[in-house]
Amino acid sequence: MNNKEERKYKTQMEAARRGIVTKEMTIAAARENMTAEELIPLVACGKVAIPANRLHKSLDPRGIGSMLTTKINVNLGVSRDCKDYGVELEKVMSAVNMGADAIMDLSSHGNTEPFRLKLVSDCPAMIGTVPVYDSVIHYQRDLGTLTAKDFIDVVRLHAENGVDFVTLHCGITRNTISQIKKHKRKMNIVSRGGSLIFAWMCMTGNENPFYEYYDEILDICREYDVTVSLGDACRPGCLADATDVCQTEELVRLGELTSRAWEKDVQVIVEGPGHVPMDQIAANMKVQQSVCKGAPFYVLGPLVTDIAPGYDHITAAIGGAIAAMNGASFLCYVTPAEHLALPDIEDVKQGIIASRIAAHAADIAKGVRGARDIDDRMADARHALDWDGQWKCAIDPETARAIRESRKPENDDTCSMCGKFCAVRSMNKALRGEAVDIL
Amino acid sequence: MNNKEERKYKTQMEAARRGIVTKEMTIAAARENMTAEELIPLVACGKVAIPANRLHKSLDPRGIGSMLTTKINVNLGVSRDCKDYGVELEKVMSAVNMGADAIMDLSSHGNTEPFRLKLVSDCPAMIGTVPVYDSVIHYQRDLGTLTAKDFIDVVRLHAENGVDFVTLHCGITRNTISQIKKHKRKMNIVSRGGSLIFAWMCMTGNENPFYEYYDEILDICREYDVTVSLGDACRPGCLADATDVCQTEELVRLGELTSRAWEKDVQVIVEGPGHVPMDQIAANMKVQQSVCKGAPFYVLGPLVTDIAPGYDHITAAIGGAIAAMNGASFLCYVTPAEHLALPDIEDVKQGIIASRIAAHAADIAKGVRGARDIDDRMADARHALDWDGQWKCAIDPETARAIRESRKPENDDTCSMCGKFCAVRSMNKALRGEAVDIL
Repeated sequence: MNNKEERKYKTQMEAARRGIVTKEMTIAAARENMTAEELIPLVACGKVAIPANRLHKSLDPRGIGSMLTTKINVNLGVSRDCKDYGVELEKVMSAVNMGADAIMDLSSHGNTEPFRLKLVSDCPAMIGTVPVYDSVIHYQRDLGTLTAKDFIDVVRLHAENGVDFVTLHCGITRNTISQIKKHKRKMNIVSRGGSLIFAWMCMTGNENPFYEYYDEILDICREYDVTVSLGDACRPGCLADATDVCQTEELVRLGELTSRAWEKDVQVIVEGPGHVPMDQIAANMKVQQSVCKGAPFYVLGPLVTDIAPGYDHITAAIGGAIAAMNGASFLCYVTPAEHLALPDIEDVKQGIIASRIAAHAADIAKGVRGARDIDDRMADARHALDWDGQWKCAIDPETARAIRESRKPENDDTCSMCGKFCAVRSMNKALRGEAVDIL
Repeated sequence: MNNKEERKYKTQMEAARRGIVTKEMTIAAARENMTAEELIPLVACGKVAIPANRLHKSLDPRGIGSMLTTKINVNLGVSRDCKDYGVELEKVMSAVNMGADAIMDLSSHGNTEPFRLKLVSDCPAMIGTVPVYDSVIHYQRDLGTLTAKDFIDVVRLHAENGVDFVTLHCGITRNTISQIKKHKRKMNIVSRGGSLIFAWMCMTGNENPFYEYYDEILDICREYDVTVSLGDACRPGCLADATDVCQTEELVRLGELTSRAWEKDVQVIVEGPGHVPMDQIAANMKVQQSVCKGAPFYVLGPLVTDIAPGYDHITAAIGGAIAAMNGASFLCYVTPAEHLALPDIEDVKQGIIASRIAAHAADIAKGVRGARDIDDRMADARHALDWDGQWKCAIDPETARAIRESRKPENDDTCSMCGKFCAVRSMNKALRGEAVDIL
């Protein structure tokens, strides 16, 4: 294999540790207004991951972690109820155009490999998968019949297909079965992958293969430079379960598994909750940073209330912004269809924009280099009542423009919200010493 | 006037200080799962306001402040560009049905008094106004021709009309003119009322009448029990202006004005920013609580980024939730049309739901009594895959149900997002010792 021979290192982490500046580091650093020299030590110590499978040739690489802009992931993929791969590919490409940094293909129906290969060949965003979902589909045999080797072979298949990061629920073990029974959580396990492994352990009596054969998995990941995204099977599925023993015990194990991966130069991301009351989010981030030694934290939400189905992009934006301000560096988007249905293209859009708002607000708050510049340009455009200038800074210019134009103001320099009562107009006139006319 | 003779006190604060339990206190306390005895000391010391003009007979009273659930306000009212009072009244009533605790009538066109009287006669939510907006409209004379007395007379008119709280920008003075010029803010003053007073001071050379004649205004407010909402003319209109000298100096003055109102038993709410980076929100709340001695804080947003026109209900939900968790007790809703146009009915709905999410998430975080109960019921319904039970707990059941039903799942107990991969289904089966079928 030519490609392997050309490279003098297996993973970005190994390269960083050996002081080799890779093409991926150079591109990822430039994206952050950093030099590769500033980025390398962060990759070397694991505080930044650059998920970049050596076979993902179309990748436009980017880093995830400390000091960098917060990245966002978009979950897509067909299910048995929504099985049109064409529609799904359209969603992927529009998600990338709308600013997705990563696409997780969670397909759970049909012929998954061609879709995965198509993604790797066409998609410049990082590609992630959850191999345990694909196992049942790949073998077309039901869960209880699969062996540990079957699961590992699907991880290898995804690595060979060019996937940049894989979610692996390595942190639960047989002991988790009694923990879950003993602690009587309201929602038990709500991680799809986690529940499959839990059920498999219950049905077969065996240990979690992703835990038992972790070293073998690391060897596969090292070979292709697949970043391990340590799944949090016990993430809370409701506020009542947040920050409980089940979640915290798994986090401790994820910290151990992080170190074992780093020993083999395998890059790691750690996944986090879930549903968490606002006052517990900062603590969750700090504990993860400490226990997992600064590994990039990838959070789903967290949703700050359970009662807003149809609006979970908003509950997630609140939680995600607070999480990112306090240390999370990768936000999984949540759409208005969460808990209800597979998202359609409009849901995907709403989810991406809400995540981007959360990520950007957090980047400003944590002082990421240059993050606020665009807000300052927006303020200048607003001060000048320069509407075209405002659209140039807007996260979704089409929507903003459409709202204004649907209710045209009488005066072209104002909007229909305030008309001639516009404070900006009044102040500009007053400060120029002009009379302010309102009537 | 019969009504005045019946009452042995002028304001709720006076009653509380004299140990009189009013009907309003009893109702407001019951709404919070408190006794009136628990509420009285909070009203007496100003930490809770119960805005309740003695002439607003249709009011369903509620408290705003420390220990209570976070309340939300909905701004409505016609403008020259959108002047249909019928449509606006429809919005008011639907806003109340969607959970608005207060309606601020910001009408700036046409015959405002009949609309205001109609609101007071029909609307059970608290009614607020900004008399300075109405002054130009009421007299049909442009700003520069109005006198200090004209402004005060409009405050009296609104009090006599039965308005429960009035926003008065008492905190800026002639000194603010040089402050604003000196500090070169990006957005100067973005408060509509603040800009009108600023312009009036510039045009006439006079002092801010709401500051100069504050005692006279307090006497009017005392007479009708109108709560003074101390407007923040210098609230930041962009992230760059947040927490600056102009804002902070005005806040100090609002603290002084709070004490002066309390000396006359007049209830006070203090208004706050605006556009604020996330990392500055908690500090803003703490400083306000200290400087204004625990008076209820009423925030507009704060918006945590400037670049999301079309989505400012989301930027405001992030900021509002953090603000409320850290001490704000009253959130002014922000709609997707903010900065762009007068909101239509759908915008109003989106704004209210986003605010309710922020308020509820904060109430959970700050430990308001019983706030999380409904989330726990939602979790129980989810665990049982009881979809009707979920709709009963949902903040907007119609929208949630419609999303699920638009993409019907194959299996009635799951949804089309995960189908048979549903973690809840898998866990329920596994914990019952059943085989988990996925295919």
